[in-house]
Amino acid sequence: MKVGIVGAAGYSGEVLVKLLLAHPHVQLAAVTSRTHAGKPLAAVIPALRGADRGLKFVDSDAAALAASDIDLFFLALPHGAAATYAKTLVPAGKRVIDLSADFRIADLATYRKYYGEHHAPELLPSARFVLPELTPPAWKTEAKLVAAPGCYPTSILLPLLPLLKAGVVTREHIVVNACSGVSGAGKKAEEMYLFVERAESMKAYGLTKHRHLAEVEEQLAVHTGAPTVIQFNPHLAPMRRGIATTITVPAAPGATIDSLYAAWRAVYAGRPFVQILASGETPDTAHVVGTNRLDLAAVHDPRTGNFVITSAEDNLVKGASGQAVQIMNLWCGYPETAGLL
Amino acid sequence: MKVGIVGAAGYSGEVLVKLLLAHPHVQLAAVTSRTHAGKPLAAVIPALRGADRGLKFVDSDAAALAASDIDLFFLALPHGAAATYAKTLVPAGKRVIDLSADFRIADLATYRKYYGEHHAPELLPSARFVLPELTPPAWKTEAKLVAAPGCYPTSILLPLLPLLKAGVVTREHIVVNACSGVSGAGKKAEEMYLFVERAESMKAYGLTKHRHLAEVEEQLAVHTGAPTVIQFNPHLAPMRRGIATTITVPAAPGATIDSLYAAWRAVYAGRPFVQILASGETPDTAHVVGTNRLDLAAVHDPRTGNFVITSAEDNLVKGASGQAVQIMNLWCGYPETAGLL
Amino acid sequence: MKVGIVGAAGYSGEVLVKLLLAHPHVQLAAVTSRTHAGKPLAAVIPALRGADRGLKFVDSDAAALAASDIDLFFLALPHGAAATYAKTLVPAGKRVIDLSADFRIADLATYRKYYGEHHAPELLPSARFVLPELTPPAWKTEAKLVAAPGCYPTSILLPLLPLLKAGVVTREHIVVNACSGVSGAGKKAEEMYLFVERAESMKAYGLTKHRHLAEVEEQLAVHTGAPTVIQFNPHLAPMRRGIATTITVPAAPGATIDSLYAAWRAVYAGRPFVQILASGETPDTAHVVGTNRLDLAAVHDPRTGNFVITSAEDNLVKGASGQAVQIMNLWCGYPETAGLL
Amino acid sequence: MKVGIVGAAGYSGEVLVKLLLAHPHVQLAAVTSRTHAGKPLAAVIPALRGADRGLKFVDSDAAALAASDIDLFFLALPHGAAATYAKTLVPAGKRVIDLSADFRIADLATYRKYYGEHHAPELLPSARFVLPELTPPAWKTEAKLVAAPGCYPTSILLPLLPLLKAGVVTREHIVVNACSGVSGAGKKAEEMYLFVERAESMKAYGLTKHRHLAEVEEQLAVHTGAPTVIQFNPHLAPMRRGIATTITVPAAPGATIDSLYAAWRAVYAGRPFVQILASGETPDTAHVVGTNRLDLAAVHDPRTGNFVITSAEDNLVKGASGQAVQIMNLWCGYPETAGLL
Repeated sequence: MKVGIVGAAGYSGEVLVKLLLAHPHVQLAAVTSRTHAGKPLAAVIPALRGADRGLKFVDSDAAALAASDIDLFFLALPHGAAATYAKTLVPAGKRVIDLSADFRIADLATYRKYYGEHHAPELLPSARFVLPELTPPAWKTEAKLVAAPGCYPTSILLPLLPLLKAGVVTREHIVVNACSGVSGAGKKAEEMYLFVERAESMKAYGLTKHRHLAEVEEQLAVHTGAPTVIQFNPHLAPMRRGIATTITVPAAPGATIDSLYAAWRAVYAGRPFVQILASGETPDTAHVVGTNRLDLAAVHDPRTGNFVITSAEDNLVKGASGQAVQIMNLWCGYPETAGLL
Repeated sequence: MKVGIVGAAGYSGEVLVKLLLAHPHVQLAAVTSRTHAGKPLAAVIPALRGADRGLKFVDSDAAALAASDIDLFFLALPHGAAATYAKTLVPAGKRVIDLSADFRIADLATYRKYYGEHHAPELLPSARFVLPELTPPAWKTEAKLVAAPGCYPTSILLPLLPLLKAGVVTREHIVVNACSGVSGAGKKAEEMYLFVERAESMKAYGLTKHRHLAEVEEQLAVHTGAPTVIQFNPHLAPMRRGIATTITVPAAPGATIDSLYAAWRAVYAGRPFVQILASGETPDTAHVVGTNRLDLAAVHDPRTGNFVITSAEDNLVKGASGQAVQIMNLWCGYPETAGLL
Repeated sequence: MKVGIVGAAGYSGEVLVKLLLAHPHVQLAAVTSRTHAGKPLAAVIPALRGADRGLKFVDSDAAALAASDIDLFFLALPHGAAATYAKTLVPAGKRVIDLSADFRIADLATYRKYYGEHHAPELLPSARFVLPELTPPAWKTEAKLVAAPGCYPTSILLPLLPLLKAGVVTREHIVVNACSGVSGAGKKAEEMYLFVERAESMKAYGLTKHRHLAEVEEQLAVHTGAPTVIQFNPHLAPMRRGIATTITVPAAPGATIDSLYAAWRAVYAGRPFVQILASGETPDTAHVVGTNRLDLAAVHDPRTGNFVITSAEDNLVKGASGQAVQIMNLWCGYPETAGLL
Repeated sequence: MKVGIVGAAGYSGEVLVKLLLAHPHVQLAAVTSRTHAGKPLAAVIPALRGADRGLKFVDSDAAALAASDIDLFFLALPHGAAATYAKTLVPAGKRVIDLSADFRIADLATYRKYYGEHHAPELLPSARFVLPELTPPAWKTEAKLVAAPGCYPTSILLPLLPLLKAGVVTREHIVVNACSGVSGAGKKAEEMYLFVERAESMKAYGLTKHRHLAEVEEQLAVHTGAPTVIQFNPHLAPMRRGIATTITVPAAPGATIDSLYAAWRAVYAGRPFVQILASGETPDTAHVVGTNRLDLAAVHDPRTGNFVITSAEDNLVKGASGQAVQIMNLWCGYPETAGLL
């Protein structure tokens, strides 16, 4: 199968290129970039020197891509831009996996509130938000367009959703603190993201209004059937990749650490990309960076009655490009782990 | 005035040596260390090359120190060891500022639960826990021995106490997430603290049972007159110094962001070492490292009804040695900012 | 083919485990460790959670390994220890690839001078030092035991040897400065390698007497037929992995930057793991970490008459475990790039 | 004495503001910035919160500054811009200490070759390049304008000049490798200087044509009376501050490590800001960052006949603003160490 990537100059685009070049079952046939059109991949992604198979960035417009023999496209574009490509590619019968926010939110009003105008609302009904371990498998046949989840949402929903559904935690007083590596901000030449500013620096940002909230809370509502509001406190940590998320949530009456772990095991047993650590251990971003894995653990605090749940993932892999490849694998019938660590 | 430091081989000891060498009103007359006795300060603390005024580490026992003409001692020792020195120095009429946990907790049973046996319980009545901006000034005359607060407690109590006392936040569902630089663990040659293990790594640790909880909750109870239980989630961040703390707490009925800021201003206006940032800004550890300052800010989240409160400090300065010097300044009648940035 | 790893608790052992688990043509059948015997691989190498194929560390002695059905062993042990295993495995007909220094130096007197007593000098005649791009191919049939090159030597010999052999540089006044990530020192719980000591720190070390000199100078002599003495100045840089090496060497009379590049291309054209950058570009460790590649470039300085040659590699991959796998691939007839990026 | 800073938005400007605010003998009376005019210092330099003494950035032009009652100005501007200010301030009788390159090079042709047109060549005769430990003291009365040395040049000239003058090293085959923290590039919002690009990355840059060469070689010629050409290989290291420089130079006939150290001691004995380490030790940037100190050491390599000389400094302090304050102290008759660590 031939696949293409639209827009690959950012950090998650770069990871996606590497994963697809090494994938055993698909052929990376096109990588587009307006800025870099004509350049070899390795000229822009030096990690690929000698390993870019002679591929060059192309400046194909959506119509040209729609007319090509490529079967599936990954959109690694800013929100807004993604919808404009999807608008052409989906009607042309191409499978599309979008890494932007454009189709993550089913509710148009919510999308508009967080992101502004939507450029292809007509595609929303045939789009599916797919968190591979949790989304019921019907999406594989229903979807024409798949929205891959955001990095923070993946690190929050995988730990939390099974617990809410199993009723082992309450729906109130959920507090999520997450610490992200700087690549989460994208490749932006702004003073704030300079090495000298970020090294040896730790700070909260985006309090009360981070865009990923929209996606998290919609999924919580969809999966549990009731509106759920969370406190989400993102932080910027002095590292390149990785998200460590810590969720504090009151235990439901009667719930124990064993019932919490049972709820997780019921969902994640045998799933290669979610690993459950013993209670008392804590996930470390350094152990998951470069893999498509999310590590999970929890403790119960008898003093407060809370569970404290910790997760770690690579924001660019399980939080973006790796998960997109995992979605492709499942959608197209390849082994779930093909081309992924 | 002559001052001495007992035990100065760790990270906060090193900072203390530098601060006292540069202090305009006191003379650093002795620095003890069993391991390094006989060596020039600069041989162990190379940052002091050419600037250690010829001082050498000495291996004085407590009796010798008690017999010296030094007026005030800082104890920069592990808990347990500090009490054994205090036992001799305090009865000899020396002022003692202890940077360990030994005298931070007035309740002996609590101390024993978290730290084991206490080696000088008879000194507890004349010891005072002093958070300079919050402890009522009577300590200056009452105390024979001052316990300087821990790093995490400083970053939690300074933001939280005025709000609890003013009734602008609830006493329930307080969730504290804190991210500390690696120097917080001390100078321990253990695999976990190696550069290769910690660089580019973020993780929670010590969940539900961190020792600093004892001190935080006792102070909350002392200042507010009621037991208060918090969720404290410490994290290790890939940086050398600094603590960024994020506190989520429900607003009390009727409380607004203005009433929160008013409560802070009532306590911290004119205090040089607590700086209040505008709501919407967030403190950054990089802006406070090297200073004795704690930066503070808060936002109100109308969706959850919570306040999210953020603080940043240097764990080795405002969280340890700088605050100890600030205590000395106040105790001995020097300007509060003498020798401090 | 079944392969085993003897001693895999260090940083290069960990990388070797990952490479061999993912290798398409061999089966990792045993991983030994005295310290960790009985534990699953993932308990010691958390990056392998869910991906260690159920393998556990075993405490097999050399005799048991010699009696097993494993065809090839990698020794990832300290020097000295490696020889004692090789002593049993080689006579038993096992192929051995040694990542230690024990068989890198053919001259016994030189070995003793730098490393002390040798525990299996009788194996030296059947051992070969193999730098895959440079060692003449006879080793594939002659060797019973292969010494994989050290990290610094790889970063020096690959740039320098073709130039000395082609006569485009002089043999005098060769100055090598190299900056290594901290993993180069191994997983040692010593104060010097703590995060707080090494972060934001840059320093030279091991001047005039680094052990890798022995190996570099022997290879220079073997390949060029004349003794060659270099100045080797290693440095420790605040990063986990990677070596950036800068070699200053006078151009031979008449040599130009074109003749230098021609000499490189004659040797490295078509070799996937040595990439030659345009003159004026400089290799960056960040572009090679995680790959088995060494990047190369050079400029001519008309003011001094020197060439300045720069290289970058991952000390744990091309400088250790990746190169060992590359050697296995060539020795056993697999594609050179099998299992390597 | 009142002092002013023209242009203080960069990294060395920020350090200069901090040093002058804390200086015991001068009053920082004006800090100019076109971009930030009207803002409190602490709004741009958050490390100064609560400690900026109410100072605001002003947008004074050169004429207004010349008419003020400020006695001495520091120019912390890009080259070119500095000369245009000096043009007005010097004739008005103000003392000027310039941190740019504009007056570091006495030879106009050399300046033009490296930097382009000079905007105030008429000031060159009354300008002095001052490396406080080495420049003969006549500058204190002759100079109307002082050029503070660059960061790399300071780290090269202090080790090398006394040795060349004493004849203990040769003038040929001098190879300088230097590794600088990222702040050396200034506060530039360019992709190359982003955290994600520079963390965990080491690379050479600017080979054969770095601008600081002009200044180094002119000083070598001025002090030794003969043209001296060096190989200068700068590198970018993944840290914020600090320069570690390693110089390889052949020993002069008969020179020993003792004669080298004697040459250094003859010049640096009693100088607080140059510290000589024992042969075999190596300076570490972490030990000098935050101080105005340069640490020095050397070894002799009997195998090559070279001395290998290592130095470390803080590029923003001894390499820029601290040295500028040291110059002011000497020029104005304050103790050399006033306001400096």
